[in-house]
Amino acid sequence: MTFNTILIVGGGLIGSSIARAAKAYGQAKTVYITDNSHTACSAIERLGFADGVSEGQADYFASQADLVILCVPPGRMGSAAEKIIPNMKSGAVLSDVGSIKGAVIEAVAPFMRDDITFVPAHPIAGTEYSGPEAGFAEIFKDRWCVLTPIKKGLSETKDLKAFWQGIGSQVSIMTPKRHDIVLATTSHVPHLIAYTLVGTAVDMERVTDNEVVKYSAGGFRDFTRIAASDPVMWRDVFLANREATLEVVDRFIEDLTALKRAIRWEDGETLLEHFAKTRDIRRRIVDAGQDSAEPNFGRHD
Amino acid sequence: MTFNTILIVGGGLIGSSIARAAKAYGQAKTVYITDNSHTACSAIERLGFADGVSEGQADYFASQADLVILCVPPGRMGSAAEKIIPNMKSGAVLSDVGSIKGAVIEAVAPFMRDDITFVPAHPIAGTEYSGPEAGFAEIFKDRWCVLTPIKKGLSETKDLKAFWQGIGSQVSIMTPKRHDIVLATTSHVPHLIAYTLVGTAVDMERVTDNEVVKYSAGGFRDFTRIAASDPVMWRDVFLANREATLEVVDRFIEDLTALKRAIRWEDGETLLEHFAKTRDIRRRIVDAGQDSAEPNFGRHD
Repeated sequence: MTFNTILIVGGGLIGSSIARAAKAYGQAKTVYITDNSHTACSAIERLGFADGVSEGQADYFASQADLVILCVPPGRMGSAAEKIIPNMKSGAVLSDVGSIKGAVIEAVAPFMRDDITFVPAHPIAGTEYSGPEAGFAEIFKDRWCVLTPIKKGLSETKDLKAFWQGIGSQVSIMTPKRHDIVLATTSHVPHLIAYTLVGTAVDMERVTDNEVVKYSAGGFRDFTRIAASDPVMWRDVFLANREATLEVVDRFIEDLTALKRAIRWEDGETLLEHFAKTRDIRRRIVDAGQDSAEPNFGRHD
Repeated sequence: MTFNTILIVGGGLIGSSIARAAKAYGQAKTVYITDNSHTACSAIERLGFADGVSEGQADYFASQADLVILCVPPGRMGSAAEKIIPNMKSGAVLSDVGSIKGAVIEAVAPFMRDDITFVPAHPIAGTEYSGPEAGFAEIFKDRWCVLTPIKKGLSETKDLKAFWQGIGSQVSIMTPKRHDIVLATTSHVPHLIAYTLVGTAVDMERVTDNEVVKYSAGGFRDFTRIAASDPVMWRDVFLANREATLEVVDRFIEDLTALKRAIRWEDGETLLEHFAKTRDIRRRIVDAGQDSAEPNFGRHD
């Protein structure tokens, strides 16, 4: 066990899952949670997976923790850091789970102390549900957690790596900048596109919402799952990873415009060429254990 | 049982599923399949779900069938109709499973006979896999099958409706034109977007394919599943439903551009407003039994 006592700041889907996993896999003796929401705190107490829950204030918990993990939406990382860091004990480790890294590092920086170490992290895991009831201990299993340490060769980075591996994750290390462009591609822009398409379908005057619901099994329903993710978190992500998001979106619009043109000019060859190359990536994702090979996600079972 | 003998033309995912379902649910006494591919015919024989398999020629089967269903890609509907219709027996019903209706009706029209009735159909069901091995009898259960009859009030439409209901489908009836705009929204454009995004990610020079695979669980992997669908079929769909596809794509690009602008100008309110309205549609799709409520499609099980 690398950390005896852990404080989770924000007991939502990811925070509550870390708490559950740390206990389930014996990666912490004591797990405290603090959350600003009264409803969330009540749920966490009722579910009983934490050793202590505190609404709003967490000075005592912070002073006891060997590891503090900020699990709030990206836009609230700064204020959470401001509140927690002054109470942390000397030598403790601070981390987070933000889906963007550059902006979180910037937001936390003004409140940092020399005697604690900040190791930013991002577990690439989640579901479309939010809140403490939605979490579960196995959510990180076989998924990747990316650490973006600010300094090289820190022992704290190794400790945090051991913690994430201990709760089932694979761990990789990269710079914050690289993280933000990679995740813009594999996560942020896919979410933006899903949100957009669901909105477009709902707004089509010629097609009723009822029809959209009835005939969603033709592909649309998969987009609605992604677009059901926490709106506040995603607003924060897009604003905080603005440049990389816009870069990837622009490339996407370019490519879509090219395919649109191929459709308009009945250029079947260009379409087929493009469509054929996408199957290989799917196979590699399944081979890498990052998705289920069950047809249709096993929906017919 | 409405039809004693059925001929399936094209034993791929959908054709082989209809054959399996017709037998499993007692909706046909005899099911014949014809397919142009030698590999497919061998697989169908080995799997043993048809009463007869024929490679290429199917004159005898066609002459026996009370119902012939064309299950070939949209671009091959015309040539399949040309080959099969002359051999069909008088009074038989012809149908299809094309994802577009206007273009299929046009393609079949030149070969129609007065003594057989064509009732176009489109079952909104499928997986990302292709070929006879991929089919299964339960694929149509609770999904919708849309019939787009050319004439109102035909008894053959009622018969085909009974057949689809008999193999587990819900059935709705609309005009071909309406079908094509509705499906452009709920199926065709979602597929085009998924194909495009997967291509964009693969082509990003700043992000390696290996990174795309590793970090795909952040949303990207769902797009790769849709983009793994049969490329030939989808090329045909986009070309055959050109106008409706382009109409919806243009709306989508408009909406994406508006959200892009909101990101650039850090207009969090516009983003949040847009994202919040998409959750309701998700709930309605789950309530309507058109998708699983399992978080993350139950991938953690």
